[in-house]
Formats: sequence, C-alpha cells, structure tokens
Amino acid sequence: MEPATFVLFGATGDLARRKIYPALYNLFVDGKLPQSFSAFGLGRREWTDESFQANIEQSIRQFSRREVANEAALKSFLRSFRYHVLDIGRKEDYASLLDRVQVREDELHMAPNRLFYLSVGPEYFEPIAANIQESGLGSSNGWKRLVIEKPFGHDLASARELNRKLSQSFAEEEVFRIDHYLGKAMVQKLESLQQSNPVFQALWTNRYIANVQISAIETVGVEERAGYYDHVGAIKDMFQNHMLQMLMMAAIHLPHDSSSDQVRFKKKKVIEALAPLQKHEIAANVIRGQYAEGSIQGKPVAGYLSEPGIPPTSMNDTFIAARLEIDNNYWRGVPFYIRTGKRMNEKSTRIVIEFKDPLKPSSQSSEEPVAPNLLIIDIGPRESISLQFNEKDPVSGQFKPVTVPLYESKGDVPEAYENLIFDALHGDATFFAHWDEVELSWQWVQPVLDEFADNQVPLHRYAAGSYGPDASDALLAQDGYHWWFDEKVEQSNESKGEQYAYNTNH
Amino acid sequence: MEPATFVLFGATGDLARRKIYPALYNLFVDGKLPQSFSAFGLGRREWTDESFQANIEQSIRQFSRREVANEAALKSFLRSFRYHVLDIGRKEDYASLLDRVQVREDELHMAPNRLFYLSVGPEYFEPIAANIQESGLGSSNGWKRLVIEKPFGHDLASARELNRKLSQSFAEEEVFRIDHYLGKAMVQKLESLQQSNPVFQALWTNRYIANVQISAIETVGVEERAGYYDHVGAIKDMFQNHMLQMLMMAAIHLPHDSSSDQVRFKKKKVIEALAPLQKHEIAANVIRGQYAEGSIQGKPVAGYLSEPGIPPTSMNDTFIAARLEIDNNYWRGVPFYIRTGKRMNEKSTRIVIEFKDPLKPSSQSSEEPVAPNLLIIDIGPRESISLQFNEKDPVSGQFKPVTVPLYESKGDVPEAYENLIFDALHGDATFFAHWDEVELSWQWVQPVLDEFADNQVPLHRYAAGSYGPDASDALLAQDGYHWWFDEKVEQSNESKGEQYAYNTNH
Repeated sequence: MEPATFVLFGATGDLARRKIYPALYNLFVDGKLPQSFSAFGLGRREWTDESFQANIEQSIRQFSRREVANEAALKSFLRSFRYHVLDIGRKEDYASLLDRVQVREDELHMAPNRLFYLSVGPEYFEPIAANIQESGLGSSNGWKRLVIEKPFGHDLASARELNRKLSQSFAEEEVFRIDHYLGKAMVQKLESLQQSNPVFQALWTNRYIANVQISAIETVGVEERAGYYDHVGAIKDMFQNHMLQMLMMAAIHLPHDSSSDQVRFKKKKVIEALAPLQKHEIAANVIRGQYAEGSIQGKPVAGYLSEPGIPPTSMNDTFIAARLEIDNNYWRGVPFYIRTGKRMNEKSTRIVIEFKDPLKPSSQSSEEPVAPNLLIIDIGPRESISLQFNEKDPVSGQFKPVTVPLYESKGDVPEAYENLIFDALHGDATFFAHWDEVELSWQWVQPVLDEFADNQVPLHRYAAGSYGPDASDALLAQDGYHWWFDEKVEQSNESKGEQYAYNTNH
Repeated sequence: MEPATFVLFGATGDLARRKIYPALYNLFVDGKLPQSFSAFGLGRREWTDESFQANIEQSIRQFSRREVANEAALKSFLRSFRYHVLDIGRKEDYASLLDRVQVREDELHMAPNRLFYLSVGPEYFEPIAANIQESGLGSSNGWKRLVIEKPFGHDLASARELNRKLSQSFAEEEVFRIDHYLGKAMVQKLESLQQSNPVFQALWTNRYIANVQISAIETVGVEERAGYYDHVGAIKDMFQNHMLQMLMMAAIHLPHDSSSDQVRFKKKKVIEALAPLQKHEIAANVIRGQYAEGSIQGKPVAGYLSEPGIPPTSMNDTFIAARLEIDNNYWRGVPFYIRTGKRMNEKSTRIVIEFKDPLKPSSQSSEEPVAPNLLIIDIGPRESISLQFNEKDPVSGQFKPVTVPLYESKGDVPEAYENLIFDALHGDATFFAHWDEVELSWQWVQPVLDEFADNQVPLHRYAAGSYGPDASDALLAQDGYHWWFDEKVEQSNESKGEQYAYNTNH
C-alpha cells in the first residue's frame, strides 16, 4: 500500500469525532492503513498536537465499534496525528501546513501522496480546493485526492457550478464524492452477488422481475437540523443522492471482471436510461408527504410544523415516494418504487426485488395463486440478504412461502466509513459517486423540484408512526403491487421467517 | 378421505415388517389414514389375527421412526388388522378372503374400496392380479388399486409382457408402481421447488445449466442378496429405475397448477427425449465397474468376486456411470451424468446442478475464474437443498464460494413409504412410475444390456472404498467437468459450508 498523508478539514467537527477517527483506528487495527501514514487535522480552534490526539483518543473510546484491546498500539496510532490551525480563507495557513506536511514526509521517507478529506460545509469545498491547488499542497510528485461529503449542490445549476469550480483544482479521477450508502456492506454485496453469480445475473431482467422496491425509512424527526432540513427536504437530503445511488446499484449489470471504471460506466448507463418525468406526469408518479402528529412505539410525537425551528406554514417534504422506470432493454416495464421518510413506523433500509408471478393457475383450477418470489436485501439496521420462495406442504399440498437467508451479517463488520476511507486511500473509486451520476441524478430530480416549488404536487400529511401517506400505497396499488413487509413491526414477537411468511398474505 | 381396505400380500415378509407396518402406524398417528380403515395381511404361514397383530406391534416398536406414545391408540390401530392364510395360486383362498373383507366392510359400513399391496416377488404379480380380478375382490362398486414394487421386468421384453398381463386385470390408472426414490422428501421437493418458483423455473434450461450430476452411492456390498444381485447388477437394480426416475424429476418443467397427470406427462416428455445410444456410442458413454478388494473407513473389505455366492468369473456390474443427453430445447447440450455403485467411499444420494461459468475474465485480466454456482440437492442420508454462490472478500477483492442451505430437513419427517402409501390411498399417482416411463426407461437401457452381454463394454475394477473406476472421472473430464464433492469424507471434521467451499477448488 502506498504511503499517504491524510489531511482532514473539519478535524474538530462532529462527523470527524463520530465516524472518521473511529474508522481510521479500525483500519489501523486491521492492518489496512499504509505502513507509512501521516495525518493532519485542521481547524480554527487553537488545539495542540497533544490536545488533538487526546480528542481522537476520546472519540475512539466512545465511538469505535471495537473496544481498545492494545493500549500501546493505540498510542502508536495517535502519534501519526498532527494538528494545524487553519482558517479556510487564509493562504498563509496552507503554506505553513505544506511545510509541516513535508517535514513529516521527509521524516517518514514518504512520497507526497496526499488525501484531502473535507468534513466541512459545502460552501467551503471550492475555496479549500482552490487553496490546496494554489499552495502547492497538491504535489505533482505524488497523487492528490479530494474526498467530499454530500450535499453536492442544492439543485442542478448549483451542482454544475460547484463541479466546474472544483474541476479547476482537481481532475474528476481525483475527486472522491462520498455517498455513505455506497459504503454499506449490503449495498456493496449487490455488486458482487451479481457480478460473479450467473444464477443472479440470469434473473436480473424484466423477463423475471416484476418490480423493485427501495425503501429507507426512519423513526426520527428533524432533530437539531430543522433550519437546514426545512430547505432541503427528503428529496434533496435522501432521494437525489442515496436513493438514486441504491437504484443504480440494484439495477446494474456487471461482467465478472469489472474494474472500477466499468462499475461507474454501468451505473451511468442506468441513470442515463432513467425515464425523465414530464411536467404533467410528476404529480402521478411522485408522492410528497409531511408528518403530522402521531405516535411511535407508543410515544406521542409532534407534527413537523410544531417542531422547533420549523415555520408553521412550511411545505417541506419529510417523505417522498416515487415510481421510476429505467428505459432500456433490461428494465423496460419494471417499476422501481422508491420511498424515504422521517417519523415512520420503523427504522429500515431495504431493497426488495419482486419476481414475476408464476404462471397463473388455469381458470379450472381452484388453487390460490402462490406468493411471489422475493430477493430481500436488508441494508440496515439488519444486514442480510434473503430469498423468499415457495414450498409445498406435504399434507395439504398447498404452497407456502418460506424465507431463507443467503447472507447474514455476523456483526462487527467494517462500517461504511471504514470501507470508503480504505478505498480512497487505495484510489479505488468503485463506491464513490462520479460527477456524471451526480449530474444525471440532479437532472432527473430538477423538474420535480420545480413542480414542488410551483406547488403542483399535493403535500400529503401522514401520521407520525405510520408508513407514510395513503397515496404512497395507492401508487403501488395502481400497478397491482404493495410495499412489502410494512406490517413487520406488529409481528415483532415472531421469528423472522414467520414474519415474512405471514406478511406475504396481503 | 374415502374408506379403504388395505390388502397386503407378503404380510409376513421383511419389507412389510421393516417399512409397511411402521409407515401405516405413523400415518395413523398423524391422522392420515381413512376414518374407516380395514386391513388384511396375507401369507402362507398359519398365523391368527392375534399373532399377526402381535407381529405388527413388534415391528412398530422396532422400526417406527417414532416411539409409541399412546398405548391405547396403538391397540386401536392394531385392531384394524386381520390375517388370512392364502396360497397365491389357490382360488378358494381368494374367495374366502373376499367373504372376510366384505364382512368387515359391512361392520364398518364401508364402500368396497380396496388397495392391494403386493409385497412379494415379481413372479407373483401376474397370478395375484388375475386372481383378484377373477375372485371379484376388485369390486365394481368401489375403487381397486394395485401397488407393486420393483423390479418391473428384467429387460424390455419381460417388462412389456408383465404389463400386458397386469393390464388384463387392472387398468393403468389402477396400477401404482412404487419407486421408493420418488417417495423421498428431497426428490419430491424438486417438483415443488420448480413448480411454484419462477426464480428456479427461469434457471432450469441449457442457457444457464452446464451439467447435472445424479449420484447414488453406498458403502455396502451385495450382502445377503448375492444370488439375486449377480443377475441384475447396478444397471437393473438402480439405474433403470431409481436413477432414471431422479433424472426425470430433475429435468422436468412444471407449470404451477400441474395435476398428477401433468407431472407424468412431463416426465414422459423427458424420458422420451432421452437420446438413445447407438451401439458404437455405448462404450464411450457408459462405464461399468466391479469392486475389487479395498478398505472402507479403515476396514478391509473383500472384492466382489470373493463375496459368498458370487461366481469367481462374474462379469456383473456393481457400478455404473453414464453420460446422457435429453434432446429437447430445454436440455440439448447439457450432459446428465449418472453414477451409482456399491462399496464406495461413502453413502450418499445427491443431485448437483452445475450452472454455466460466468463470463470468463478477459485475457488482460489476471483474475482467477470464479467457482461455478451449484444447486445441491442432498437426498440421503442428509436431506437438504443448498445453493453455492460466490462472495467477494471485502479485503482481498477475491471471490470465494459460499454454500447456504435453502432447505434442511428438521428430521423426523415422513419416510418414503409413508408418503407413497398415503398417496396410493388417496389415488394420487404423481410419485409413482407410469408404465410409459418404465417402458421408455427399459428402451433406453436395453441396448446397453445387450452390449454388456456381448462384452463390448470394458468392466473396470475399482478398489472398494474409492469413488469408482478412473474411467468414471475421465467421462466428466472429457467435457471439462468433475464429480462434485468426492473428497467430502476426508473433510468430515469441518463444517458443511466449509467442506463445500473447500471442495470447489479442484
């Protein structure tokens, strides 16, 4: 593994503390950091190297998925970190940072490979990138990489503008746009499941698949993010990025020896083929919702408009359901249903592939149609892939659905941030969002944003603790389908297999 | 369930004692016998009803898969049984039997539905059937059914002759030819797996399947059956019936609401399409073997020619491997490999469906080809259905095969004889061998028998405790394949998943 300097903007922030330091530490424990590794934390606060290291240590003890087993190793890990006070707009700070980075590189006999991780607000992306470039921090004697988090723009125009600016300092192949859903183990499994298994490749077309459901719902409300969230809503916060990325991963067709470039090429093929919604089609295919008061797990919760910081006239969406179609030979005629929302009945991110009904019983037959086959990818909090198929009861001769796990997480697996930081250090961009994907996602979403802004799409209220507005169920019912497993919570005392089996009956 | 009288020829025999009484008892415990049920045991021995019932009780206590939990229920079950002394050739005995059967039917207010189970040598099938007919035991006021066991003929001509004779007394739909492999739970699952699951239906063609391996091997030798076995060999004892029936079940395509007639119709389609071997093709496609001395699980065992009762010049086959092709649009180009033998390394009956290789890595790629996907149907002694597919190691990026169970027997499931007797009492012929299937099986096998008789096919010796002669491995190697899981026994201290995974590497 090539030596690398990890330069973290926003080193005193919450994401760094909760995710990035624990991720780096776990990579270190697993021997997945470069042999020669130097790290610089940047912030405006006047920390020292020592106080910085103490902060990192605390964050690891609090947030690491693993307990610290070896104190000496932890100390050695912490010694890689330096702190540098930096005002994002002050060029002198970049110059002094470069000096210190180079000193460490010399000490460690390292090539000047530098990864710049921007854990800061999106308004700082461009000035930081420009200052890295101007200061010479991005050395031509090694590689440089820019890792940024969402949001990438707030609409199509702003995303294009941001990209234009960043591209003056970093080439596309140097930009690693984190979409942490792409770091999730089960989303990554989607790739390998298909890539190397002809049995799944064979099934991955409109010939066998009836519909695909991608649902990411949660029980929390806006929490402390009211001011921000009320300007973005579910469609920008979740749909344009995470949900469309999961759609691409679910719909991709990969040959066995796919390189990272090919994965991105194939993902682009999917999003390019996403049929755009015409203005007059939007209200019929996109459901927007906003939670009203209700109760979750027996506790009453307030409606969105009563949340602190939310204006009582807000028309912001806390829920989106949409029907999309991928207009290519693989997927034509297969609806992709996407749903995401806050203050829902349960926390669950899941993709369900519903296969077409078996040949219907002939008209003379008195048999009930059997349940469809399903491939169920539980992305979180449960991590598993299961297959629902039908078995014949040897006594009654009736078919009943059974669910078997193809994969179940054994727990204690690398978190999304570990996977993604590891890949970025390796220069593997497979699970990062390419600009083409980001632009095409915004392109699909923009007309919907416009219709929302013109108030051409009804805003449905839904009770907190429900599965969203009735219109979301009606969207699928129009096509003869329903959201799978919505009653799951009511069956929570039953075993998983039985739950699924039970729920297939409606 | 319709009332029925169960008339058992060979009531004092070994099969009755080991299989039939325990099966009837377990059906009774499960409430799967008719409410009105009368049973008559027939034999030449001078038993009384009481001694017969005592014998049945003893057989149940010794051989039932379940302990007797309710003594009163057992007594009530035993009271259904009467014994009648019968000489197969004496018409008077049938007349007196009819009297007693009718008395019981009157007592129980039962319709004269009578199932005749012939647990006797095949030479008695025809005289018994004729006497049943002549005596009026097969009443026209109810149904009559004839259940017979293998062998059904010893070659094509004798099978046809037997059928011609039986058909004078029983119509084809009244004849239930037991092939107890069709009663095995996992063989029956093959039907329902496909019948109601589009994901399996989709995969069931030469587009996705590379080859099918059907293997039934055992560690025992000829045991006490030397005189009989030396005249039939593996080809008549196993191949013509059980192995070809499993082939039909593996290759069948069933619509969802298939009736019993449709199952048989589709099975017939398979065996009709079995490409006949021309005389000159036989030696290249059929391997015959005979075990020599060797050792099994560390114990030395004698060769076939040293077994008591076997002539030292015997050319009898104790092992058959064959490559077959089903010449229709579903299966053209897919070799079906069949293997059966005695004194092999392990006892195992298994079907492996090997799927075609994923797209081969391009020539520039340094990646190893991944292991093929497999669907593994373990029929006995383990009862399970598993899928082997590939997962990507998140660290190395290499694909490795994993095996997951789609179904595992929970144990204590109905035995083959329970399933089959239950079906025969119900008149459900799905899992019985139709005459068409029997005739077509003999038709395929007959030229092979002729070549064996002319000594045109080499007889390979194989060491007891091996997986058969090298020629059997070479048969698959010609096509670029190998028998799956042959090293399994050596891995017996590992877990199942690991065994499979390990064995995919060669």
